[in-house]
Order: sequence, then structure tokens, then C-alpha cells
Amino acid sequence: MMPQIVLFGDSITEQSFRLGGWGAALADTYARKADILNRGYGGYNTRWALFLLHYLFPLDAPTPPVAVTIFFGANDAALLGRTSERQHVPLEEYKENLRKIIQHLKKCSPSVQVLLITPPPVDEAGRFEYARSQYGDKAMQLSERTNEVTGEYAKQCVELAEELGLPSINLWSKMQETEGWQRKFLSDGLHLTPEGNAIVYREVVKVLNETSLSAQKMPYDVPHHSKIDGQNPEKTLQLQCPAV
Amino acid sequence: MMPQIVLFGDSITEQSFRLGGWGAALADTYARKADILNRGYGGYNTRWALFLLHYLFPLDAPTPPVAVTIFFGANDAALLGRTSERQHVPLEEYKENLRKIIQHLKKCSPSVQVLLITPPPVDEAGRFEYARSQYGDKAMQLSERTNEVTGEYAKQCVELAEELGLPSINLWSKMQETEGWQRKFLSDGLHLTPEGNAIVYREVVKVLNETSLSAQKMPYDVPHHSKIDGQNPEKTLQLQCPAV
Repeated sequence: MMPQIVLFGDSITEQSFRLGGWGAALADTYARKADILNRGYGGYNTRWALFLLHYLFPLDAPTPPVAVTIFFGANDAALLGRTSERQHVPLEEYKENLRKIIQHLKKCSPSVQVLLITPPPVDEAGRFEYARSQYGDKAMQLSERTNEVTGEYAKQCVELAEELGLPSINLWSKMQETEGWQRKFLSDGLHLTPEGNAIVYREVVKVLNETSLSAQKMPYDVPHHSKIDGQNPEKTLQLQCPAV
Repeated sequence: MMPQIVLFGDSITEQSFRLGGWGAALADTYARKADILNRGYGGYNTRWALFLLHYLFPLDAPTPPVAVTIFFGANDAALLGRTSERQHVPLEEYKENLRKIIQHLKKCSPSVQVLLITPPPVDEAGRFEYARSQYGDKAMQLSERTNEVTGEYAKQCVELAEELGLPSINLWSKMQETEGWQRKFLSDGLHLTPEGNAIVYREVVKVLNETSLSAQKMPYDVPHHSKIDGQNPEKTLQLQCPAV
């Protein structure tokens, strides 16, 4: 049946079908070629994601995904001693958890195309502003994430991809190349605006276009309507699909 | 695994993951609850759609969809003797083809929730304008579809739904309740603007909310992150998902 491309990650993946989202844009690009499945879990870090692997990617799946994006780190990088510390995962463990996720996916399907995505940069001012708008005077006084620390997680993610010969998207670096990235790409200092989503979409497509999973190269699941002989539709369609 | 809601139809379904599309909005609403699968085939009428049934909905599927939207008619209603006549399907045959589609889906799964959607209204002026913008002087001189004829197809669709006790959305009528529907809801006299998509989204959600497939009532696939004990994540997560 239709090949599956799974988006596995945290809230930035879970929200990727919102207006202007990168998941929805991928689903449009791959219409009639692959299903884009949202496996984004808001708030999850890589430690918790490990518990989901056998559930989301059973080893005996008859049709495992052809590609998986792994997009964690924004929660792992939450700081100890701050309001989000329960989500914190130490840097080295983050890298090893990513490795376990990849190993599991490769066990499901040796041919799966894995694509690692680093967390985006963090805009601390944007985070404070968001917290104040939500919680007023009760908002956090100290950053629960810093851009610098998140950058270290991004570095580990890219290094692991290089070590394993996998493609990766260094979103942390990429976004900061643009002046005003803080407001342009981030809606609350952490999550993505439609423009931020557009970067993820473009970068994912760029990577997939270098593989056999380029949407342009993949065939339609069933013939384009212009190929159907209006007088004898069975000529075109019956080969592939037995009629009712 | 994740329940599947399949969107089966023509180009108005195929394009439903574009910016502001109703498919993408459903996928966002059902994130972590159901997969929304795009089975839209631009240009297809119900006659051609019949050939796809066994391919898209195999009778022996271990996990058939929990719900299917059937959204055809815009091409069936193309007029004989005009530029799109190869897509024309006679009115009575359209109704019987819809019936066959429903019968097949019920054979796959007696509990499947089927939702019929009528074609949207047609704005002939918008169609001419679009044709001129695309083909200049070579554009069609006569409408390839009329709103009146499409309305007859919409009527058959709704009548069939009533006959079978299935929910339906009379998009043809619904859209024409709003003044200026021609430009507000249609981008080229036939396909939907983001506002037109929003109507489809709202109406589909309204129907599903009356069933057990209301997104609000459906459980998350795995626990919300706030339920996870940071010190002992296995307490919450291992019950559902064996760790790696």
C-alpha cells in the first residue's frame, strides 16, 4: 500500500499540521505517493520516547515506514533547577537515546531512511514574554531553557548523524543565520511560526530529494486521471485494481 | 495502532493538505488520536473510483478505517458535449456508484462510519475567468459545469445518505447560504479557498462529534507528558509500551 513517512518528535512535530505547518506541507507534497504520519508527543524528551518505540514501531510490522524524522532535544535541553527540570535529560544520555531510537528503527527495517533534526534555537526573551502573557506575576523568573545549552544538544545530534552516516538538519544553526530569527521563526521563543515551519519543510524536502524518496521521483499510487481512457477506463485501471 | 480516518474523493480531497486545507486541519484536530489519510484523486469521478476500491480498501485489511469521507460528484457533474465530458457520469449512475462504494466499505468493516459530502456549488463566471487566465483565447466558450446540474448531483448524494441512514454534508446548499460564496469559498469557481476549506472542516467535525469518533472523546494514543512521573517514567509508560 502507500509508503509511510513518520514524523517522530515532540510538540514541534505534534503541531506540524497546524496552519502553515511543516507536516501538512509534506503531506501535500507527498499526496498520492506516501502517507505522512504524525507521531509528535508534546513535552516528551528522548528518555520518554524510548518507551514508545515498540508501540509505535513494532519489530514485526508488515510494512514498516520508509522514512522517519527524529526531532527531539528541545525538552531534553530544559535546565536542571528550573521550572521544566522534569523534562531534562543529560547531554550524553540524549545522544545515546537518539542512538537507541535509530537502532530500533533499523531493526524494524534496515532500509529505513532516518533523518535527524536538531532542536531549533531558543529565544529567552520570547520565552519570558510568553510566560508573562500566560502566568502574569507568577511567571518564571529564570530561563527554563537557554539558547547556548540547546546548541550543545544540537551539536550532539549532528555529531551522531555524522558518526552513523545519516543526514541531519541543524535547525539550531540554520535558523540563526537569518537576522531577527527570534520573532521570524519562533512564536513563543521555542515553537515555530509558519515561517519557521517553512524552513523545516524545505530542509526535509531537500534531504529527501537526495534519496529514492524524492516526491518527484516517486510514482503516483494509481494512474493520473488524464491517462484514463474515458470510453474504456478498465484498460488503464483494471491492471492495477480489480473492479468491484 | 492508530485508528485511521480516510478522506476518499477527487481533487478537492487531494488538495486538502494545502495551506488552510480541511484535511490538514482534521489531522491537527486528531493528532495522537487518529491518522487522517489522503485518498483524494484529482479528476476522478465515481465510475473510475470504483476501480480503486479493492486496492485502497482491501476486504482482508487487518485494521480497516474507522471512518471514511466520500466526496465525489464535482467531476461526475461535468456536462456532456463540453470540454470535460470524459469525466461525465450520468446522475443515476453517480448515485449507484456511491452506493457501491459504501457497500464495499461496509463489507470491509461493518462498523465503519461513512460520511457523504456533496460537491460544492459551481461559479460559472469564476470558471470562465480561470479558463481565460490559463488558456487565453483558447479557453472554453461554454461552461463545462453548471451550478444547477451540480446541484442535482448534490441532491442525489443527500438522498442516498438519507436512504441508508448515513450522515451527509450538503456542501452545495451550505455554501450558497453565504452571500458572495462564489469568491469567498471558491478559488476558480470549483476548488476551495481556505475559507471554503474551513467550512468542510467544521462540518466534518460537527458530524464526527456526534459519533464515538469525536476527537475530544477519543483517548490519546500514549499518556500526556504531564502524567509522566519524571523520577519513574516507567510507572506511566511501561504499562502501555515495553521499554527498549
